[in-house]
Amino acid sequence: MPAADAAIDALRERIPSSPILTDPDVTEGYRRDFAKDPDAGRPLAVVRATSTADVQEVMCWASENAIAVIPRGAGSGLSGGATAVTGGIVLTTELMQDIEVDPVTRTAVVQPGLLNAEVKKAVAEHGLWYPPDPSSFEICSIGGNAATNAGGLCCVKYGVTTDYILGMEVVLADGKAVRLGGPRLKDSAGFSLTKLFVGSEGTLGIITEVIIRLIPKQAPASTVVGTFPTVADSTQAILDITRVMRPAMLEFMDRASIRAVEDVKRMGLDVDAHGMLIAQSDSPGADCSREVEFMAEAFRNNNAADVFTTDDPEEGEAFAAARRFAIPAVERKGTLLLEDVGVPLPALPQLIERIEEIAAERDVLIAVIAHAGDGNTHPLIVHDPNDAEETARANLAFGEIMDFAISLGGTITGEHGVGRLKKNWLPSQVGEDVMDLTRRIKSALDPQNLLNPGAMF
Amino acid sequence: MPAADAAIDALRERIPSSPILTDPDVTEGYRRDFAKDPDAGRPLAVVRATSTADVQEVMCWASENAIAVIPRGAGSGLSGGATAVTGGIVLTTELMQDIEVDPVTRTAVVQPGLLNAEVKKAVAEHGLWYPPDPSSFEICSIGGNAATNAGGLCCVKYGVTTDYILGMEVVLADGKAVRLGGPRLKDSAGFSLTKLFVGSEGTLGIITEVIIRLIPKQAPASTVVGTFPTVADSTQAILDITRVMRPAMLEFMDRASIRAVEDVKRMGLDVDAHGMLIAQSDSPGADCSREVEFMAEAFRNNNAADVFTTDDPEEGEAFAAARRFAIPAVERKGTLLLEDVGVPLPALPQLIERIEEIAAERDVLIAVIAHAGDGNTHPLIVHDPNDAEETARANLAFGEIMDFAISLGGTITGEHGVGRLKKNWLPSQVGEDVMDLTRRIKSALDPQNLLNPGAMF
Ligand SMILES: Cc1cc2nc3c(=O)[nH]c(=O)nc-3n(C[C@H](O)[C@H](O)[C@H](O)COP(=O)(O)OP(=O)(O)OC[C@H]3O[C@@H](n4cnc5c(N)ncnc54)[C@H](O)[C@@H]3O)c2cc1C
Ligand SMILES: Cc1cc2nc3c(=O)[nH]c(=O)nc-3n(C[C@H](O)[C@H](O)[C@H](O)COP(=O)(O)OP(=O)(O)OC[C@H]3O[C@@H](n4cnc5c(N)ncnc54)[C@H](O)[C@@H]3O)c2cc1C
Repeated sequence: MPAADAAIDALRERIPSSPILTDPDVTEGYRRDFAKDPDAGRPLAVVRATSTADVQEVMCWASENAIAVIPRGAGSGLSGGATAVTGGIVLTTELMQDIEVDPVTRTAVVQPGLLNAEVKKAVAEHGLWYPPDPSSFEICSIGGNAATNAGGLCCVKYGVTTDYILGMEVVLADGKAVRLGGPRLKDSAGFSLTKLFVGSEGTLGIITEVIIRLIPKQAPASTVVGTFPTVADSTQAILDITRVMRPAMLEFMDRASIRAVEDVKRMGLDVDAHGMLIAQSDSPGADCSREVEFMAEAFRNNNAADVFTTDDPEEGEAFAAARRFAIPAVERKGTLLLEDVGVPLPALPQLIERIEEIAAERDVLIAVIAHAGDGNTHPLIVHDPNDAEETARANLAFGEIMDFAISLGGTITGEHGVGRLKKNWLPSQVGEDVMDLTRRIKSALDPQNLLNPGAMF
Repeated sequence: MPAADAAIDALRERIPSSPILTDPDVTEGYRRDFAKDPDAGRPLAVVRATSTADVQEVMCWASENAIAVIPRGAGSGLSGGATAVTGGIVLTTELMQDIEVDPVTRTAVVQPGLLNAEVKKAVAEHGLWYPPDPSSFEICSIGGNAATNAGGLCCVKYGVTTDYILGMEVVLADGKAVRLGGPRLKDSAGFSLTKLFVGSEGTLGIITEVIIRLIPKQAPASTVVGTFPTVADSTQAILDITRVMRPAMLEFMDRASIRAVEDVKRMGLDVDAHGMLIAQSDSPGADCSREVEFMAEAFRNNNAADVFTTDDPEEGEAFAAARRFAIPAVERKGTLLLEDVGVPLPALPQLIERIEEIAAERDVLIAVIAHAGDGNTHPLIVHDPNDAEETARANLAFGEIMDFAISLGGTITGEHGVGRLKKNWLPSQVGEDVMDLTRRIKSALDPQNLLNPGAMF
């Protein structure tokens, strides 16, 4: 493709300080996110942008040449949102990692490539906390978090990424850079554009800076862990808790995920249990022990064996880490189709029950973990991609689970985003009129469809 | 205007169960919001919609006849957002007042016309709390709150309206009704359209239902009140507090507003003080008294006289009520031009100082109250509309305050919205590129510019 080569050469001249990778052995690593989309294309090049100005140049160049741009953070996404397309380029923000913390306004200005864990660390030096904590916090970028409106474990009490984004700088499809919002806790001037870009999955613009809101470090958390003889017992315990209080964490693991974690970690988890809950309270002082005792009681009332409580944060963190390790652990059993369905809380038992049935009907292993306190589950469908027949059954299960979640008034994605893997289900969740509204906004902002084409739509 | 009369008659037939008012004596009451826009037009009619279906009919009719529609809640707005336009109609949602509380998912489905205070009351019956609390909570509607992204006193700790809106039903310019979001705590499916409609001030669609998130009732608040010899002392106390902790309320009144309130309420406020702060903590148990003591100490360290603390919620509420009463109290001195400028917290002293200078330079009384904990101030510019020369000076001061807030990296509106009165300053705050983005979204959603023309743009 000599025309494409010439275009890339021209781009190289326009952004001398941003490396451009074209060696297929190297660009291979940028073709997929963690969802390992089997239909990933081969990009012309990967641009490792080092400044907003260079991102603007890239978008001007892309508009002139009608070349698709796939924005990419750290590539930990689980929906094929950062899948490369053939003939397009991948623009990664991984080299843009500056952070400036302002402890007085309790805000930070962060470049998109900084990892979530690094953001947390930098602000902790000022006694501050950035709550959103996807399980992937050590391998995902703050820009990717903003682009997907990432959730996590503490969101049940502290909210999701959008609740902490006060402003951003975004490069639009035509190369213009705009500043939205700012380090102000309240701002009603004009449309809430910041919030529109949060969760837009790279389809409306490239986030080159975010302004985040921070809160004071909270009290250390105490933890309750319990294992249940049935899934229904554990989901009933969840409802008994959330009806009355707001835990700082309330996570669920089913038998398959307990076993997968125990296989690797050998931490003595009860492999005969059908459900395990890990809950925390970080309320200050006596309230913490009161809440922990309340949750332990809710566990026991629902037939939990081995209810364990600890106010040692490290001991508690070991259980949270076990929960976070569930995806990699289950992945050792085979390739995963990873769901992210969420339902209104009372429908959680029904959802999990139906997933068990689908697993049996389609004869595939489905491990279920959940940010249970907010009704957001991750059924992990295990399959062997070399077994076409099993893969077909896994794909059927994948769709059936989303269909069922929608029928319960739920969502196909609570936190990972739609990306490429779930886009066929978006219309049946939101309806044709909302799709039309969505498309009208997309074409008003990106009329050439340059930004992440194929994602979401 | 016989053509217009015929159009109204036709509308009457299409929505027999929604009253249509045309008597000028009656429609007079719907021409202005609390900002009393002197340029308000005379509407053809006021439609008191009673159902979503009727709102849809109105918008279909408006599209066919190219008639402007001004959405209106309770008309308590302070930016001329609901000002009537000549030749258009006003559509008020005041008759749509249903609410359904779901204590298990901790959400409620509310029609837009229900007053904020009524929402609070209905959910309190289930032990739940809807935090956003504009001072006008007894006279503003939840739909108006969503349309302006209303703030209030507890927002410094609990966030603003957008943080509590999980979903909504909106009627678009073309009469289509769409459901956005839902009673799910997390949802990353598609664009964050719910959040885009929050704060859109009736320019993108008519909100016919909101789904709100509720939290458990919090512990009763304790209160600290202190009066300060200088404004600078009080703003320093604010910074000393917010640097370390998150109060549940942190409100400021300057001398003019203290005096105006004392004139009417006779509660023994110190009329010689130059600043008064009213702060609360609602942290549970011992943490509450610790926080109150910390704030009292910060007051004393900054030369406060008469630091008063109480854990009696009613006694505390009396001071909060005094603060909420400031706008009506100052209004007795003359007509108000009401500002809503917000700045990053450290710039607060500078802002308030400059406002004092502007008051002196322009020789007008400017009383300042502030949701100080989040940097959001309400300078109240008093003038006599029959004194053209004074009104001109008041208008100059109005603009100068916004210009100065912008120069400090602030916003022209923290919570009231842009409406008609502040729209000329919006471009200088957000810049031409953001205005362009805003206009592109507006014309994608409302190509005929039927919805609230003249507001925001
Ligand atoms: C083991 C594991 C556990 C996980 N747990 C969670 C969890 O608990 N909660 C959760 O929410 N997610 C979780 N994830 C998913 C993933 O980490 C998140 O979606 C994360 O936000 C992606 O960030 P990233 O930097 O890796 O983005 P990428 O994967 O690179 O991109 C994600 C999407 O954002 C877009 N994008 C990235 N950067 C930008 C930018 N600067 N501007 C515009 N668009 C951009 C991309 O185009 C793509 O659509 C998990 C992933 C793994 C592998
Ligand atoms: C004494 C006093 C104190 C106040 N204190 C505060 C405060 O502390 N914090 C604060 O934020 N505000 C405050 N306000 C301002 C005002 O109460 C808020 O802006 C409130 O949200 C307006 O609600 P409303 O129902 O009266 O709306 P309206 O005034 O009727 O309308 C406001 C805007 O919303 C639009 N709108 C209304 N309903 C709908 C709908 N259903 N769909 C689409 N658009 C709609 C209108 O077109 C208009 O642009 C105060 C006002 C007064 C008079």
